[in-house]
Amino acid sequence: MKKVKNIAVLTSGGDAPGMNAAIRAVVRTGIYHKLNVFGVMYGYRGMIQDDIVPMDSKSVANIIQRGGTILKTARSKEFFTPEGRKKAYENLKKRGVDGLVVIGGDGSFKGAHVFSQEFGIPCIGLPGTIDKDISGTDFTIGFDTAANTAISAIDKIRDTADAHDRLFIVEVMGRDAGYIALYSGLATGAEHIMVPERPSDIENIVAALQDNERRKKLVNIIVVAEGCPHGSATEMAEVVRREIPSFDTRVCILGHIQRGGSPSCMDRIIASRLGYAAVKALLEGKYQSHMAGVINNEVRYTPFEQAIKTTEQIGEEWFGLYRILAS
Amino acid sequence: MKKVKNIAVLTSGGDAPGMNAAIRAVVRTGIYHKLNVFGVMYGYRGMIQDDIVPMDSKSVANIIQRGGTILKTARSKEFFTPEGRKKAYENLKKRGVDGLVVIGGDGSFKGAHVFSQEFGIPCIGLPGTIDKDISGTDFTIGFDTAANTAISAIDKIRDTADAHDRLFIVEVMGRDAGYIALYSGLATGAEHIMVPERPSDIENIVAALQDNERRKKLVNIIVVAEGCPHGSATEMAEVVRREIPSFDTRVCILGHIQRGGSPSCMDRIIASRLGYAAVKALLEGKYQSHMAGVINNEVRYTPFEQAIKTTEQIGEEWFGLYRILAS
Amino acid sequence: MKKVKNIAVLTSGGDAPGMNAAIRAVVRTGIYHKLNVFGVMYGYRGMIQDDIVPMDSKSVANIIQRGGTILKTARSKEFFTPEGRKKAYENLKKRGVDGLVVIGGDGSFKGAHVFSQEFGIPCIGLPGTIDKDISGTDFTIGFDTAANTAISAIDKIRDTADAHDRLFIVEVMGRDAGYIALYSGLATGAEHIMVPERPSDIENIVAALQDNERRKKLVNIIVVAEGCPHGSATEMAEVVRREIPSFDTRVCILGHIQRGGSPSCMDRIIASRLGYAAVKALLEGKYQSHMAGVINNEVRYTPFEQAIKTTEQIGEEWFGLYRILAS
Amino acid sequence: MKKVKNIAVLTSGGDAPGMNAAIRAVVRTGIYHKLNVFGVMYGYRGMIQDDIVPMDSKSVANIIQRGGTILKTARSKEFFTPEGRKKAYENLKKRGVDGLVVIGGDGSFKGAHVFSQEFGIPCIGLPGTIDKDISGTDFTIGFDTAANTAISAIDKIRDTADAHDRLFIVEVMGRDAGYIALYSGLATGAEHIMVPERPSDIENIVAALQDNERRKKLVNIIVVAEGCPHGSATEMAEVVRREIPSFDTRVCILGHIQRGGSPSCMDRIIASRLGYAAVKALLEGKYQSHMAGVINNEVRYTPFEQAIKTTEQIGEEWFGLYRILAS
Repeated sequence: MKKVKNIAVLTSGGDAPGMNAAIRAVVRTGIYHKLNVFGVMYGYRGMIQDDIVPMDSKSVANIIQRGGTILKTARSKEFFTPEGRKKAYENLKKRGVDGLVVIGGDGSFKGAHVFSQEFGIPCIGLPGTIDKDISGTDFTIGFDTAANTAISAIDKIRDTADAHDRLFIVEVMGRDAGYIALYSGLATGAEHIMVPERPSDIENIVAALQDNERRKKLVNIIVVAEGCPHGSATEMAEVVRREIPSFDTRVCILGHIQRGGSPSCMDRIIASRLGYAAVKALLEGKYQSHMAGVINNEVRYTPFEQAIKTTEQIGEEWFGLYRILAS
Repeated sequence: MKKVKNIAVLTSGGDAPGMNAAIRAVVRTGIYHKLNVFGVMYGYRGMIQDDIVPMDSKSVANIIQRGGTILKTARSKEFFTPEGRKKAYENLKKRGVDGLVVIGGDGSFKGAHVFSQEFGIPCIGLPGTIDKDISGTDFTIGFDTAANTAISAIDKIRDTADAHDRLFIVEVMGRDAGYIALYSGLATGAEHIMVPERPSDIENIVAALQDNERRKKLVNIIVVAEGCPHGSATEMAEVVRREIPSFDTRVCILGHIQRGGSPSCMDRIIASRLGYAAVKALLEGKYQSHMAGVINNEVRYTPFEQAIKTTEQIGEEWFGLYRILAS
Repeated sequence: MKKVKNIAVLTSGGDAPGMNAAIRAVVRTGIYHKLNVFGVMYGYRGMIQDDIVPMDSKSVANIIQRGGTILKTARSKEFFTPEGRKKAYENLKKRGVDGLVVIGGDGSFKGAHVFSQEFGIPCIGLPGTIDKDISGTDFTIGFDTAANTAISAIDKIRDTADAHDRLFIVEVMGRDAGYIALYSGLATGAEHIMVPERPSDIENIVAALQDNERRKKLVNIIVVAEGCPHGSATEMAEVVRREIPSFDTRVCILGHIQRGGSPSCMDRIIASRLGYAAVKALLEGKYQSHMAGVINNEVRYTPFEQAIKTTEQIGEEWFGLYRILAS
Repeated sequence: MKKVKNIAVLTSGGDAPGMNAAIRAVVRTGIYHKLNVFGVMYGYRGMIQDDIVPMDSKSVANIIQRGGTILKTARSKEFFTPEGRKKAYENLKKRGVDGLVVIGGDGSFKGAHVFSQEFGIPCIGLPGTIDKDISGTDFTIGFDTAANTAISAIDKIRDTADAHDRLFIVEVMGRDAGYIALYSGLATGAEHIMVPERPSDIENIVAALQDNERRKKLVNIIVVAEGCPHGSATEMAEVVRREIPSFDTRVCILGHIQRGGSPSCMDRIIASRLGYAAVKALLEGKYQSHMAGVINNEVRYTPFEQAIKTTEQIGEEWFGLYRILAS
């Protein structure tokens, strides 16, 4: 087995807090092991357009606490074509890059998998997404920060809901995965939580709210994941306004504030551990096309095929839990 | 002049961070001066419905740092009728209330003014509104917190805007007043700020953005006050998408998070000073129907008629300033 | 087996953020299952002094986001005597309490264990301590919040360290356990981390700092756990000032700010899950004297004897990790 | 009068949040007016050592929200000597610098004043200090952020004080000025506030605490400015422990966290306005050796001699206020 000498790192897809901490860990671990480390700007697009810069220890100084990604990120259609990937490969090849670290979500891993197969370059993925929707890891880089941002916002919303006796329907991020909704809803005492993974019984929710109305419990919060197929926050508000017109119903869409901000302790730690683990995996040469994740507090490597395919189901006990606690 | 013995305090209209600090100051100053202090729940509505509770020093313990209002707030149509105000008066009268403190915005002051005239009960208003849209005071209780919440959110949005090279159009609160937009826009380095007080030259903004596009300055933030007559954030996004389709344009509506949260230092201080000043004014009997405000760092009393009417204009120099600094 | 009907809950030892979330979960789960729930004020002291109040659903409303503990906490010497425990038992007995939930650290569990043995009252412990020093659980209620408070403080300290080219020695909490130091140090890019579990090689640290001095890396942060036997922050500062007088060395002791504040998402979730699990355990009658913890993201019950005895060791790989990443 | 063409900016003395916002405003306003702008690293020391870099618009991008100062800061003894200032002048002269902006405290202004007199270079000072101890301005850059950091810390301390029924003595920054103590104490409902400007009647404080002990008010907070001549936090704790041994008394020294962190809205606004005003003053050539401050919300220029000499006194009414409100 040929020993790796030059590695590159990129961030791809939606940005997530903690990506900078992961970049820092990749760069510093690489340099510690005498590797040359390159940073690819704007994800796969920069790889194709040769937007690649050498990194040293200083280039990642003082970024562990910053949101966003110093390497920028983008989505690239061209990388889905063989021609695009060929160009990307040429740009790595001319720098002698023989190992790649891709920080992103499952879409990014699909690209990395194909690329790795086609050109024989070992690729290690790190789960960087606020959605926590990737199997092969208990946590994703960015999820904990996003959940904390959401609870801090919902705490504020509860202040005003309490002051006015209002129902607030709060939409949080999560296109396919309801974890931000579930965690932030449970953590803020939300009366109802709606997630994509599980049909929401709208009739039931309305009945429960009507019951609250009778009991003079007028302050209510519903947390809805944006990807909820059974009704967005706005649609849900229409239903409530029609069925319970006496309720003072408001909608808040938290939006992109959930992507930014200084990463939480947990996200910085996971990002640091996984960045380190990615370089270790490249150095050891054992993994060709894998994601490094944390399972039961230990680093584990999962083949990209499996990191891509599965979507973890949210256990039924979680829904029982928040309902009992919010009652 | 009859000395005041029993006073009541209420919060009215939209809630604002710092209202609890103001309530605390009114209650404790009243008790210190041997007054009986009553809390009216849900603003004028509770005054009409006799939802009035005696307050003691403990009832306002540990609230100076809390958002919302422990007295709750509401809007009351009935108080705009003579019958409603009569009922309200009876409820005060039977408790011997001979002084009222109203924490709220200009709509609440209008009601207090009429009420005071009709029944001869001295009323002191405190400017409690996040909008900073009341003349007779340099600051309103809640504005500084709301502005800080907005900048903290926009800082987060800038993280993700930077990561993706995006244009974000951020809508902040402010129906008639653009101060939150102005302050938060200036404080976050926004490229454009749109406020209700001043026509926004949409063509000019688009031209400036097109210029930025040419210069490869793709990260841009526009802060828009919700009350902007020349186009909401959503409408503005349509314009930009049409005129500069190459821009990756996103909209964020910050919404009610701006109303909640622990009040800032400045809001707690102003609320404390003004709550104290309101009771002082009732004790001294000099003011019958006035708002207590802070002008040039000193407490000043302004007749409700003047606190209502004027809307301060935002000086032209502010607009020059942010444009130069964001360039 | 007799079915449990009346339960009591208390917080004991040092307070930790998330205790209120745990109390809420115990109370609401109990009420949901038709139990009577009592709150014991001031831990074991209140149990002895009969400071016990009935709890209903409303008494725990709006506390999930609050630091501290509404049940207050204290240390009680009397509970270590048979007489004290007898009195405590009588006070529970007269209310028919047949199940007890104790939220606290290992000292509190020792008391609960003896009490449970002596009087046959099932006791379930919940790990409530910022120190994460209890075996039988991966996380303790309060640790994540304390770690986040520490990193937010150290981030601020780094700002001023950077501005002045200074060395800061930051002391964080953790008498026997270095987890707050380890996590906050790793998450803030600290150059050195000193923990009680592992001898710190002071000479080595000084040599590394001297090396940094030669390389003109003058901004350095050392995070020290308060229980570090090899030298407190103040002592360490003396060593550095003596050995490297050219360094501008400052000490910060973060202190009790690490105990307070609104709990993080993770702490609220763990507290909610464990509060629910404690009542479940009492209802099912399977556990007599156990701590409910979270291991590998699942609730597990550990006999108090085992929750007390072990102290988890910090793996060597963590120390390698931060050193590589801070270099 | 010769028109200014090349200006330099530096930060000096203790760092303060908002210094970066001020640097950004100076640089961008200068560039907007076609000036060449230089950044002097490490304050006067860098001016002497020729550590001076050209600044462009990009060099101050994305710093408005950052704590610390990108120009770094230091104290320089050499600048107090004619030789040192001569060297500094030569370094400015060779770049044609004909205007200097100094962001710092009164010590820095003294240096700027002498320098300006000696070499005829117009110097404008901006009040950058968390202490708010400079006359000629209502606010200093950094004070509002430091006060907010302090109240956020004291709020957390109150959580744990409440949980344990404790007295906390909290030491905040402020060597000669008690404003941080006064504002943060008032804003957190502290029972006592001790400042350098005013003798604290220790006997009185102890008597009041003893009275609280009798009334079972065991949770108490004393905020002490570090510069308090009548006793530091630690000394005060000794007094209380001796006089009221039944109190559970703890000390917290907030320390350098008060210097760092993202600046508040108000600090960013003031810094932006004053940075702009400094360049305007240099362009207009009206002021030779002045500080730009904000008085009654308007920019005013004060000769360095006056900005140095006076120390504003804290009005007696503030002390009456917090005592009434905390009772």
